[in-house]
Amino acid sequence: MEKQFRTNFINSLSGFKSVNLIGTVNQEGITNLAIFSQVFHVGANPALMGVLIRPDAARRHTLENIESTGFFTLNHIREDFYKQAHQTSARYAISEFDACQLTAVFGDMQPAPYVEESHIRIGLAFAEKHILAINGTILVIGKVVETIIREDCIGEDGYIDIEKAGSITCSSLDAYHTTQLLGRLPYAKP
Amino acid sequence: MEKQFRTNFINSLSGFKSVNLIGTVNQEGITNLAIFSQVFHVGANPALMGVLIRPDAARRHTLENIESTGFFTLNHIREDFYKQAHQTSARYAISEFDACQLTAVFGDMQPAPYVEESHIRIGLAFAEKHILAINGTILVIGKVVETIIREDCIGEDGYIDIEKAGSITCSSLDAYHTTQLLGRLPYAKP
Repeated sequence: MEKQFRTNFINSLSGFKSVNLIGTVNQEGITNLAIFSQVFHVGANPALMGVLIRPDAARRHTLENIESTGFFTLNHIREDFYKQAHQTSARYAISEFDACQLTAVFGDMQPAPYVEESHIRIGLAFAEKHILAINGTILVIGKVVETIIREDCIGEDGYIDIEKAGSITCSSLDAYHTTQLLGRLPYAKP
Repeated sequence: MEKQFRTNFINSLSGFKSVNLIGTVNQEGITNLAIFSQVFHVGANPALMGVLIRPDAARRHTLENIESTGFFTLNHIREDFYKQAHQTSARYAISEFDACQLTAVFGDMQPAPYVEESHIRIGLAFAEKHILAINGTILVIGKVVETIIREDCIGEDGYIDIEKAGSITCSSLDAYHTTQLLGRLPYAKP
């Protein structure tokens, strides 16, 4: 396969992805914001999430900041700012918050910036790192230390209605999608 | 937080997820099929995908079969069989293909079964395993060896229109969603 064809094709295979803005800050207090589509649930107790970071220069600030400060945020992306979110993947000399006109806000539990425009924001403490031998990709595990979520999106059973919160999904490298609930299914028994 | 509340809540945080049926076979030729929502892209060249497997008994057959035969398949889930796909998470004494009325088909490149009802099927060879120290979760990396995809879903640039293929997404532990494309965005430059 030709290189770009292959990149689009293989990136499509895993299905729909979560799409989050990761907020970090360096030790000089300069904020950084970058879009990631490889974020996933790792465990509920302790509450853990994972991020895969490619070993290329474009994403290095995020990893450096996570390792030097020990914290990062995940912020779900909504339809009304998905083009700005995508734009954070360009290389800027200034903070992507300023370059892409998104608003940095800070919580009480950790120093990394949240995205005010997001309705689901998660603060995490760096917990563990693995380097995949096969291609150098870095797996970062974070422990949830804070969540800032619109209250009317949280159900009585703890289910967060992320569709109501406006969270979108993505596919391949560059496609964004809204969603429509089919239904919630009961715990499966034979 | 109460346990079930916490489980629903934390499982919601990562955003929309890919949702795939993983097909495997054991050395006696008995097939297994299980639903997984922690599947992600790892790299395009070599073509790699990752799966997180919880260290509990319910998912052990999948991991055992991957390790003993060296192969597994990923099969995107469509609206017309998502209830059967969800049902594979129940504990059956027989193959989930039979218990949940899904059809096993086999490819040319590897021995694990595909789901005929799926329009995007991927065959993978086991490549690498990591155990997360913090909670025992197992990360399995597979190398793509075969893809079986409806041709009219593959664009000239390699982009696979997984929405057209009917692939759905999920959130939290039990919610399933269809999608609607907002758009594809150009490569971001400052």
